[in-house]
Amino acid sequence: MAITIAVDCMGGDHGPRVTVPAALAAIQRHSDLSVILVGLEDQLRPLLKGDEGGRVAIRHASEVVAMDESPALALRSKKDSSMRVAINLVKSGEAQGCVSAGNTGALMAISRFVLKTLPGIDRPAICTTLPTVKGHVHVLDLGANVDSGPEHLLQFGIMGATLVAAVEHKERPTVGLLNIGEEEIKGNEVVKQAAELLRESGLNFVGNVEGDGVYMGDADVVVCDGFVGNVALKISEGLAQMLATFLRQEFKKNLFTKLAALAALPVLNAFKRRADHRRYNGACLLGLKGVVVKSHGSADPFAFGNAINVALETAANGVIERISERMAAIAAPQENV
Amino acid sequence: MAITIAVDCMGGDHGPRVTVPAALAAIQRHSDLSVILVGLEDQLRPLLKGDEGGRVAIRHASEVVAMDESPALALRSKKDSSMRVAINLVKSGEAQGCVSAGNTGALMAISRFVLKTLPGIDRPAICTTLPTVKGHVHVLDLGANVDSGPEHLLQFGIMGATLVAAVEHKERPTVGLLNIGEEEIKGNEVVKQAAELLRESGLNFVGNVEGDGVYMGDADVVVCDGFVGNVALKISEGLAQMLATFLRQEFKKNLFTKLAALAALPVLNAFKRRADHRRYNGACLLGLKGVVVKSHGSADPFAFGNAINVALETAANGVIERISERMAAIAAPQENV
Repeated sequence: MAITIAVDCMGGDHGPRVTVPAALAAIQRHSDLSVILVGLEDQLRPLLKGDEGGRVAIRHASEVVAMDESPALALRSKKDSSMRVAINLVKSGEAQGCVSAGNTGALMAISRFVLKTLPGIDRPAICTTLPTVKGHVHVLDLGANVDSGPEHLLQFGIMGATLVAAVEHKERPTVGLLNIGEEEIKGNEVVKQAAELLRESGLNFVGNVEGDGVYMGDADVVVCDGFVGNVALKISEGLAQMLATFLRQEFKKNLFTKLAALAALPVLNAFKRRADHRRYNGACLLGLKGVVVKSHGSADPFAFGNAINVALETAANGVIERISERMAAIAAPQENV
Repeated sequence: MAITIAVDCMGGDHGPRVTVPAALAAIQRHSDLSVILVGLEDQLRPLLKGDEGGRVAIRHASEVVAMDESPALALRSKKDSSMRVAINLVKSGEAQGCVSAGNTGALMAISRFVLKTLPGIDRPAICTTLPTVKGHVHVLDLGANVDSGPEHLLQFGIMGATLVAAVEHKERPTVGLLNIGEEEIKGNEVVKQAAELLRESGLNFVGNVEGDGVYMGDADVVVCDGFVGNVALKISEGLAQMLATFLRQEFKKNLFTKLAALAALPVLNAFKRRADHRRYNGACLLGLKGVVVKSHGSADPFAFGNAINVALETAANGVIERISERMAAIAAPQENV
């Protein structure tokens, strides 16, 4: 199935010099993929090589949303931003999905305004993949929703499970609720109520997952409030960075350790590849009437390419349609009452 | 200054065979330290070597709080548990602090009941040290308080800063508020209000710290709700464990990687020592009228020994008295109104 992805080429810390090469590499990898490069045409055009075989188009957009710009302002005043034009292409059906490394808040605000949320979904959630000892896990929400209520956590569970079922062809993916374990009060009120809703939801709910269980692969999907999820994601980034710094420092200590590093280099590189967070770049904004994928702002071409892959797979596997059907099925019996 | 620490020898996954050797090693390290070993005497007595020079006493306690026991039940029905007797010794002044690797919820419930909280403190908080790129950070709360209000986060800040000032002799330690950064809504309502309180508190408040900033050493003290803090701590444990597993697997892959591991062994060991979470074992239950330190349940003698160190340092530096004075100073002007 031929899929077209709109790429916001101006977003992110590095703009076109990352996004354009990543998009050109993506069409090499996927013969059924076309891309629409959105942004300042005079910056994009020179980066093309001319051998794209008709699968690359450029769509000029005269404005750029800054990384620190207020989402409300970006939404109101920049009607011709690369971000907005890319989302418009999804709305019009010219593209089946879009990718941006820009300002998360603006991407969320514009996506909601242009595409709207699916019936039954109160707010979209940010869903990403993380590695685990057993494979990987999908975690949501990662920061779009703070102060989520029980019903929101239920919606996250439904959306996450539907995504995994569609993209990974797992019949009944397991869903866990991020919670705290040993302490006096096990979890807060919202989590307790969410657990009840999830238990009755028909999902393959496996109960509470503690922080360490996320990376141990205790569930295929882990749901949490956006505040908690964002802290969990960022603290993981910080810890990984600190450990990498420690390891580097130890190997650089003296001549002997440098020789040891040389001997261990192939292994260290294999380890680095395996733990490489760039492989997990590309978070879905789930719950919208269209595929929108957020890349890390600092992504390099390899990382941004993975975000394009996520958009392609989400679109190709009809994730939006399946979430929509699922929500309709849930709503139906209640409407009959 | 001579300090006596009461040790709950029955708590934790391994009981006396970890706690007793750790206590005996601690008195070797600290010539001004005495310990009271609390628990089933017939299990503790055989573990002594007889060369403790009068700095080890045994206090029999006939009951043991199980690791999975309900805190309420442990509080009501086990009046002669090793945990409770150890806390009683702090209350009576026979010990200046106590350490337990037992059930966190029970330890918190019994401590609050026996010792009471300091004036101005609504609930104690669990405070631990974590390594950072620059040194280390104190983080609280780690799970005692879920659904913390803004005033609780302020109290955590005051307690954490006072602890660091006392133990590390830092005049004005920096205090950060764990928050999420880039997203549309920066933080939830509680965090926004807490930031205002912290800004007006006279503490050296440095504003928001994002998840990754914790390990980057952005502040000396980071405050957060107990649910968020517990998830952050446990997710760190899980990630570190996963990365260690990956590294081990890569080095065990074949003969060449095994040889590389041999060459790199001294460096890998140095790295392991540096990132060793056992060095950071021992969390203070801050806000009580007495020093209570919680060890990880799975602690080995090295880790448990560090928890004893934490209790010793907290007691020796008068942390409780200093928190008490600080809270009184804050309350005073209001009382004069």
